[in-house]
Amino acid sequence: MSEARVLTDPDVIDSYARDRTFVEPGKPLGVVLAASRDDVVTTLRWATEHRVPVVPRGAGTGLAGGAIAGDGSIVLSLARMTAIKELSPVDEIAVVEPGVITADLDRAAREHGLMYAPDPSSYEISTIGGNLATNAGGLRCVKYGVTRDSALGLEVVLADGRIMNTGRRTMKGVTGYDLTGLFVGSEGTLGVITSATVRLRRAPVAPPATFAAEFGSLREAGAAVTAIMAAGCQPSLMELLDRATLEAIDDWRNIGLEAGTMAMLIGQSDATDAQAMAERMERLCMENGASFVAVSSSPQETEELIGLRRLAYQAKERQGACLVEDVCVPRSVLPEMITHIEAAAVRHGVRIATVAHAGDGNLHPVFIFDHGTVEPPPEVWAAADEVFTRALELGGTLTGEHGVGLLKQRWLALESGPVATEVQRGIKAVFDPLGLLNPGKAI
Amino acid sequence: MSEARVLTDPDVIDSYARDRTFVEPGKPLGVVLAASRDDVVTTLRWATEHRVPVVPRGAGTGLAGGAIAGDGSIVLSLARMTAIKELSPVDEIAVVEPGVITADLDRAAREHGLMYAPDPSSYEISTIGGNLATNAGGLRCVKYGVTRDSALGLEVVLADGRIMNTGRRTMKGVTGYDLTGLFVGSEGTLGVITSATVRLRRAPVAPPATFAAEFGSLREAGAAVTAIMAAGCQPSLMELLDRATLEAIDDWRNIGLEAGTMAMLIGQSDATDAQAMAERMERLCMENGASFVAVSSSPQETEELIGLRRLAYQAKERQGACLVEDVCVPRSVLPEMITHIEAAAVRHGVRIATVAHAGDGNLHPVFIFDHGTVEPPPEVWAAADEVFTRALELGGTLTGEHGVGLLKQRWLALESGPVATEVQRGIKAVFDPLGLLNPGKAI
Repeated sequence: MSEARVLTDPDVIDSYARDRTFVEPGKPLGVVLAASRDDVVTTLRWATEHRVPVVPRGAGTGLAGGAIAGDGSIVLSLARMTAIKELSPVDEIAVVEPGVITADLDRAAREHGLMYAPDPSSYEISTIGGNLATNAGGLRCVKYGVTRDSALGLEVVLADGRIMNTGRRTMKGVTGYDLTGLFVGSEGTLGVITSATVRLRRAPVAPPATFAAEFGSLREAGAAVTAIMAAGCQPSLMELLDRATLEAIDDWRNIGLEAGTMAMLIGQSDATDAQAMAERMERLCMENGASFVAVSSSPQETEELIGLRRLAYQAKERQGACLVEDVCVPRSVLPEMITHIEAAAVRHGVRIATVAHAGDGNLHPVFIFDHGTVEPPPEVWAAADEVFTRALELGGTLTGEHGVGLLKQRWLALESGPVATEVQRGIKAVFDPLGLLNPGKAI
Repeated sequence: MSEARVLTDPDVIDSYARDRTFVEPGKPLGVVLAASRDDVVTTLRWATEHRVPVVPRGAGTGLAGGAIAGDGSIVLSLARMTAIKELSPVDEIAVVEPGVITADLDRAAREHGLMYAPDPSSYEISTIGGNLATNAGGLRCVKYGVTRDSALGLEVVLADGRIMNTGRRTMKGVTGYDLTGLFVGSEGTLGVITSATVRLRRAPVAPPATFAAEFGSLREAGAAVTAIMAAGCQPSLMELLDRATLEAIDDWRNIGLEAGTMAMLIGQSDATDAQAMAERMERLCMENGASFVAVSSSPQETEELIGLRRLAYQAKERQGACLVEDVCVPRSVLPEMITHIEAAAVRHGVRIATVAHAGDGNLHPVFIFDHGTVEPPPEVWAAADEVFTRALELGGTLTGEHGVGLLKQRWLALESGPVATEVQRGIKAVFDPLGLLNPGKAI
């Protein structure tokens, strides 16, 4: 490991043992900053030989505790492996190391008229490797899919140091089991990704057109979402902000929130006929009861409208410590789910503000509690428990795009059932029989 | 198994032991025509108890030998489980039994302005279960993806009769490992799919517009494909026919093939501005040397142009027995791959006619040999071997959409490598420790 750096300062180690959750890590033995695949191989061989757990890590922007490191483990950071090894405009693929910042790859692709589609909110600071480990989503996935839909092939190092290639460089292929898909979303529990072949897509040529619409009820906003999707408008993003979120933004930036506004829908089209499509979505919002709609294809006004959405988290963080949650339901029950969330907030005396990737039915209820509280208080967990249970009852899932990590372990069996749970443990044992890779995560 | 029928007549059994390949099956013990999930459970429990191999089967339209049944096995046909159990226009999903004919689901969806996108050439006779087992592709996947991209969740019965649910009803979700993806393309070696939740998509509202272009060289046709994709035209299908294919069609239907025509490109747009998009693709063909281009959005003319493509296989079957192959390469090397195929044909004295899903880089070289020959002669295998090797050398894969089945077993290790091979065997053992499910296929 001539190139790798090993960090042993306890304070530095501690900073590498955390992610964006409140979870207190243990005390890892050290941090390896890998500079190459060989460093990863060496680290994993050593860990296997000495039976030491390894917690792989990208930029630590996760929201589910997937990168929290425990006592006596080694943190294996891939953040220094930042090479874009290949970018083929003709084949529309890139081959990248795991530490490449997501937005950097997107920018590199745009120089060739392409884009890297997955855009988790963290994409200016998160890594491709972390995105793959969590199967990250984002705003654009309503049109372009999640990280899985852009992953073609991987190079991974298994727990014992063996190198395995999965997938391919081609758009299609069915040789053997889909090991690429198995690794995406596995939170570093099956192996460490050291290279990824990802699919790029043509970047839109026209400037996008954006709309924002205000509704007097969640039901109307939900009906507008349904109408927009049913009309085949193909929004490139469509975000729903509930009243609590709008109030948080209004408290901060004074957006002139009307008393009767219960929800706002912000959408965008990046199609060749973006302006016409945005106007069509505007009409559908009006037909479904929107009281105010703005549409624009000017870059500045678009930025202002989307900016409202971007302010959401920061506005909430001003109000208190935040537990950012992540459930996904069938699109038809999105308003019902938000109503349940609001009821849970009232019942448990908890503040919850919800933003949703509405086109996907993916909701982020943010539980806001007192600044300075180390961990969410019991009433927050009680409300969260109710939210998860409701999501499952409505045919939904515990996590749309953030992952299971540590935080969702206690609800996991509710969704997976005993057979799938046993099978997943069996699969884990095939890759990592000693259970050294990111123990306690994902499954 | 009150509802299931068990067939024991040797001739009938034999007809259920075959697929669309030339491979001679063994002598199975019998055929179970399952009518329900319970029938599948009962069959698999019995098979486990008696250590009898089970070969699951849809419509038997496979081209890789994936449904060929061996001596002493039970054929488990899912073809009678044909219920569309749910079709939700708002959530754009359907829940179907595995025996539903692919085109039937597509037609049911179109009654609600939706479509089921995957369209393997066999889609009027193949089943959803079979499509899932092989991760079937088709003409439309250049725009809408393969079967995997439409599969959200599965109900499967494992070899020992346990029932497992995978995936979800939502558009996104990352709870646990991606078992849905693992089953798609696994050729019935991990379990038997008894229900599938699939994604539907909005059906195009405007009639599609179609073009056909003739080129004097493969290089020019390939350049046109590259230009069309690079311009972001998003064809809903784009098929390349080589000279040998065109000759086979011309011999049969006299399409007035010019002496200098070496390739034909047939493409379609189903966008809202389909006609303009098809004209744009026409211009790109002309700029890249096309000698003749036809464009139309009339349903009848569209049907005629696409009809040429549809005639390809039948035209070849008139010329001899056919081994339909399936490799996929990065799009940029598509012309080079076809040139290699033509050289292999000359070198081995074999007739090969190639059709390609050009937008995906997915080629179907059809090896044509004497009618009445039971199995492809050695020179066909020698040429096929060269084609596979070349495809891998060019960064491609052994199979884009037909699967490994029995036919590609001997080349599999070339692509998968020893570690992935071992890992896949380990995964197989987790699901099917006795090795009873479709032995010898997929991995």
